Amino acid sequence: MNDPFVEPQYFTFGHPPDELVLKSGLKLGPITLAYETYGQLNAAKSNAILVFHALTGDAHAAGVHQDVQNPGWWDPMIGPAKAFDTARYFVICANVIGGCKGSTGPASINPATNKPYGLSFPVVTIEDMVAAQKRLIDHLGIRQLLCVTGGSMGGLQALKWSLLYPDTVRSAILIATNYRHTAQQIALHEVARQAIMSDPDWQGGDYYGKSVPGRGLAVSRMIGHITYMSERSMDEKFGRKLKGKEKLGYDFSHDFEVESYLKYRSDNFVQRFDANSYLYISKALDYFDIAEDSDLQQAFKNAAAKFLIITFTSDWLYPSYQSKEMVKAMKANHLDVSFIEIDTNYGHDSFLVEIEGQSKLVKSFLGNLPL
Amino acid sequence: MNDPFVEPQYFTFGHPPDELVLKSGLKLGPITLAYETYGQLNAAKSNAILVFHALTGDAHAAGVHQDVQNPGWWDPMIGPAKAFDTARYFVICANVIGGCKGSTGPASINPATNKPYGLSFPVVTIEDMVAAQKRLIDHLGIRQLLCVTGGSMGGLQALKWSLLYPDTVRSAILIATNYRHTAQQIALHEVARQAIMSDPDWQGGDYYGKSVPGRGLAVSRMIGHITYMSERSMDEKFGRKLKGKEKLGYDFSHDFEVESYLKYRSDNFVQRFDANSYLYISKALDYFDIAEDSDLQQAFKNAAAKFLIITFTSDWLYPSYQSKEMVKAMKANHLDVSFIEIDTNYGHDSFLVEIEGQSKLVKSFLGNLPL
Repeated sequence: MNDPFVEPQYFTFGHPPDELVLKSGLKLGPITLAYETYGQLNAAKSNAILVFHALTGDAHAAGVHQDVQNPGWWDPMIGPAKAFDTARYFVICANVIGGCKGSTGPASINPATNKPYGLSFPVVTIEDMVAAQKRLIDHLGIRQLLCVTGGSMGGLQALKWSLLYPDTVRSAILIATNYRHTAQQIALHEVARQAIMSDPDWQGGDYYGKSVPGRGLAVSRMIGHITYMSERSMDEKFGRKLKGKEKLGYDFSHDFEVESYLKYRSDNFVQRFDANSYLYISKALDYFDIAEDSDLQQAFKNAAAKFLIITFTSDWLYPSYQSKEMVKAMKANHLDVSFIEIDTNYGHDSFLVEIEGQSKLVKSFLGNLPL
Repeated sequence: MNDPFVEPQYFTFGHPPDELVLKSGLKLGPITLAYETYGQLNAAKSNAILVFHALTGDAHAAGVHQDVQNPGWWDPMIGPAKAFDTARYFVICANVIGGCKGSTGPASINPATNKPYGLSFPVVTIEDMVAAQKRLIDHLGIRQLLCVTGGSMGGLQALKWSLLYPDTVRSAILIATNYRHTAQQIALHEVARQAIMSDPDWQGGDYYGKSVPGRGLAVSRMIGHITYMSERSMDEKFGRKLKGKEKLGYDFSHDFEVESYLKYRSDNFVQRFDANSYLYISKALDYFDIAEDSDLQQAFKNAAAKFLIITFTSDWLYPSYQSKEMVKAMKANHLDVSFIEIDTNYGHDSFLVEIEGQSKLVKSFLGNLPL
């Protein structure tokens, strides 16, 4: 029986002189990671699954908190009898470094100045995020993970983990993700960053305690929302329905439901997310390329995990062909990889909403791994 | 023999009390249209082709001006022996109302106040743009057009013309376009508008003679550029190539060529385009729906033109399925319609760059229309 409520936990490490050495060569420390766990670690410590969140996600992947009873972002996937069955598995999710949900990021206090880091926070990479989480897993006394998994940026982290720490990971489930960020993915992030940085309230990243660059961040989020849905799902959900009007207004207020939706969602986002974190995390994504120092096939030469790769037909942000290229390179390395493309209209958001199809695949995949 | 240089021309009409009555019910006048012509009108006035430009285009469709020798935006398609052969046809292109390239728009002087219109300019629709151009065609003494044509927003105008003035148009070539703006198309424009309107320099549209809202307009343009290219063409053109660096910079300057490209193109755009015009024209596009008062089949009941409809496989902004729905409705009305989907990687921009394929289709289509 699980506790009725989950609680955020915190792990702090990397006090000088033991800072985390980042890929850039810069050092970061001390570092706090906010994390949550669901289920119980078994005696053999063989049932741990590490779940990674996406760009604007957090450590709250499942269950509800006692104060605000908001279900976690992957709650339909994690819990008793769910895909990641917490009666059987011990599931961990940590907020990434660079984030703003309890882990150390640009809004954290820079111990060197006693002020928020802002842009003095070092640029971090997916590799750095994963390295920080490795410290958490070590701290929890877990020597091997049954599975690492995530969708979108979560998938990049799971992939990177499988390459950096092949001995510590038995399997990886990579969902709606890629092995490198492509020109379009970089471009979409760059527009989002420009929107934030051209908001006068951004102030070179030094806005803490003052007005936040909410207008720029809202524009970033609107772009995000469009890329997370498919053209068909937007048309099915909104079409040309008007919002609170019987006919077109012939002015620049919102006429269409889709316009109001974008405003509502982006206003909401501005309340809960730090603009600088959006810059840092999007940059980490854009820097991601497992084949930067080799060819793609070579990049998998030390991988040892069993892989399940899931994509979605209508996901145009991380289209299936990108995962297929990765599968081909894995197979050339004789890795054990299953690839499934789920037919759905929900676009990139499918990893959050296409629960039934994913659950079946995940259950069957994990069920074949003896604890 | 054509003149070596083309010259912008201007037609002014709609002086009170003969203003153009807009779809909103508001009146606009006087109206100036900037236009250009290429080739010669024949004695029977039976060889005129009206070309419509896209969102940020202008009347300069072909040839070069004497002062700045910049070829027109469809120069590879319009000229002697080209698809729209100016040895045979008389080609006209006018800047839309609401624009900023010589036609009356929000930057024009409002005769009621002797100041620039700004947001006192009435919201115009594609129907209004077409109605204004009908006045130009009447003024030129042309009673029937051999063809109306355009890509993207130009296609919407050509389609609308064929429905509003069925007796005046013998054929229409609609390229990379749609019969209504869908939720995704509206959403992408709304983000662009929000980017402009949240720039403090926008000042409610009243920025003429002061700082222009260049940062917001630049963000709008970046979004535009991404939507005009395909994922594949961006990857082929830019991939993950670095710009002026040998390795990643680990800061928020531009690392990738695609980022520099977006900056270069958007900075350039800010010099040449009025932010308020972007608001007005994008709104006109979003309001477009030929089936707003009926079903789609019904919308074509008075159409009489011969249609050629061209789409591009990699155009995700105006995907082919939208044109196919239109073709189906046209066929249900027993209209003479040919539909071709050109296989290309160039995305929505294909109508500007896939010259060979389009030229062949256009030449053959026009060649079957006796003058």
